[in-house]
Formats: sequence, structure tokens, C-alpha cells
Amino acid sequence: MVITMIKYPNMRKQQEKMNNYANLGMTLESDIEITNQYYLDRNIAVIHKKPTPVQVVNVSYPARNKAKIIEAYYKTPSTTDFNGIYKGKYIDFDAKETNSSTSMPLRNIHSHQIEHLSRVHEHGGIAFLIVHFKKQNQYFLLPFEVLNRFWQNQNTGRKSIPYETFVTEAYEIKFSFQPRLDYLKVLDTFYNI
Amino acid sequence: MVITMIKYPNMRKQQEKMNNYANLGMTLESDIEITNQYYLDRNIAVIHKKPTPVQVVNVSYPARNKAKIIEAYYKTPSTTDFNGIYKGKYIDFDAKETNSSTSMPLRNIHSHQIEHLSRVHEHGGIAFLIVHFKKQNQYFLLPFEVLNRFWQNQNTGRKSIPYETFVTEAYEIKFSFQPRLDYLKVLDTFYNI
Repeated sequence: MVITMIKYPNMRKQQEKMNNYANLGMTLESDIEITNQYYLDRNIAVIHKKPTPVQVVNVSYPARNKAKIIEAYYKTPSTTDFNGIYKGKYIDFDAKETNSSTSMPLRNIHSHQIEHLSRVHEHGGIAFLIVHFKKQNQYFLLPFEVLNRFWQNQNTGRKSIPYETFVTEAYEIKFSFQPRLDYLKVLDTFYNI
Repeated sequence: MVITMIKYPNMRKQQEKMNNYANLGMTLESDIEITNQYYLDRNIAVIHKKPTPVQVVNVSYPARNKAKIIEAYYKTPSTTDFNGIYKGKYIDFDAKETNSSTSMPLRNIHSHQIEHLSRVHEHGGIAFLIVHFKKQNQYFLLPFEVLNRFWQNQNTGRKSIPYETFVTEAYEIKFSFQPRLDYLKVLDTFYNI
């Protein structure tokens, strides 16, 4: 049986829904986690998200050997969210989303994250950000050097990195089905590793 | 003013107390964390402990912008506790303590930790365990290869790694004041990095 698709208004709406489905409830973070799982399954790289740090204040034991945390608070992470190894290289990055179509505000980034990425860079690791411009729905790998240039100049200069800088100095990561965000391809192509 | 130390029984007791003080309430994990901070402060290496993973079930908001976790559970970590970069190399390890003076039971180690260390090793990272024999108060860096040999043979062979194997095939890490557990020295000496 052949079904001919006729785009009745209703069906088009449904089609749009389906097209968007892949992104429903998905954040940049989980897209990266799915990508990392893809890399892991195929033995391409070993990169994990670090757990969110939690300060545990009170634990109860409703049953033996069963700890239930009943009071805890989120802590500010002292490093970035993702790290691991690819082709023998230490990889370290964080993920940022911005609603602005014209720039990524530097206040999205904590100073301790810059310090951490700077140390990694200095020790020979590959440090970067993955940035999602939600309005354009574009993803970029922003090398630490570019990020750091803007960071160091923010007291005298602008307090955000313009979208144009991403177009010219960062590397676009195309969103696809598998892997979702193939950021290691950027390292292959532009970092020569 | 010169104070002459005369070892009256009481003072000796106090002295012993002080000597032990450095270890009071200290676990292997925190000794490693203090060592890592030493490495970080002196720009020797960038190695951090990953936060303990927690499954958050319920959060309350007693005040705006203040999240209080009121129900959460500890999750089994999917990787090891420590990773980072040293001399451009990816470093990955876990810390284990044993009360036995004759061997380290393999049940102290989760299979997913072995899998993770195995992947790291395969991708060119440096993978190992730091093991504390509490009875002897000795610390060893156990290379992944040795660990894996025992792990792979545990169905046919013994289910623990004998203390003797640590003496002959692992590297002792001497406990000292600063840094507490200079495990990177072992990598310098025996891994030639």
C-alpha cells in the first residue's frame, strides 16, 4: 500500500511536531551526553559529564543499607562539566546556551571555569566551550584562546562575545541524527589530532 | 627564652597525639584531595575528584533562588573518582582502602570501574588504583595492567590481589607532610612521563 502524503493543515502540523520531537525536553547538555555515549559505544573516545556537585547536610536511614538524603544543596562546580580522553589527548570543556542572537554574554561563565580551562590549556590539554545559539539553532566549538581573549579584555572592552566572532573564529558543529553533536570531528579537522 | 623538652610521660602522650593529629578524621580520599590541591597550587598538575553522583528526586524552594534538595539518593558512579592532566597526559584512577593485611579483595572494585580504566588505558591514558593497606599503613600505586590480570582471572583463580603482589609489582607511595601522597613522583620514576 502506498500512502500519498497530502499536506492538509492538520498533517503539516503533525509533521512539524514530529520534526521537533527529537529536541523535545532535550537540552544542550543531554545532546552532548548522548554524543559521548555514541563515542563510548564505538570506542572513539572516553568523555563523561561530571556529576552535579551537591553538599549533603542530612541523611536518614529508613532501612538498613539504604541512605536517603533529606537535606542537601547544589554547590558551584569548581571545574567544567565534561572531560575525558580522545586519541591520547586530555579533553576538557563546558556547555553554554544563549538566548541572544547577537552575542554570548561573558557572565554565563564563572571565573573558576576560565581558570580551570586556562590550566588545562597550559598543561597541554584541549580546552574549549560548546555554545548553542538557540535563536539561530547553531552550535559552535569555541577554542579557549578566543574565549580567553574576550575574558581578559572585558574590563576595558565588551562583556560578551559577538555572534560574528563565532562565525569567523569558532567552529560550527552541525546537529545531526548520529552522533548528535560531532564535536570531535572539529578537533580532527582543525586541531590536527 | 629556650624551652627544654623533657619527655615527662604526659608530654610524650601529648606528642604522640600531635603526631597522629594529621591523620585524625582523614581518609585516603581526602589525603588525595589535599595532594591534588598541592599539585594545583604549584601548577604541577590539574587533577580533581569528581563529585559523588546523587539522584535528586525532590527539591523544595524555601526562598526564591534557593533550592533545597529534600529527597535524593546516592548513585553508583559510572567511572572512577579522580581524573585530570599531568605533563600533557590524561590521568585516571580510583582510591581503595583495605583492612586486610594480606590482600586487597577484588569485590572492592566495581566491574564498570574496570571497564572504564580499561578504556582509558586503551586510549593512551594512565590508569591505576591507589590502594591503602590500613594495617601496614602503606600506600601503593597499582598499575592497571596488574589489576586487570587479577580481575580477568578471578573466575578461575583467586578473588583478591595479594599484598606480596603490591610489594613486587606495584609502587609504594610514601606518606609525607607535603605533598601527602606524591603519586605523580611514581609516574615520573616508573612511567617515564
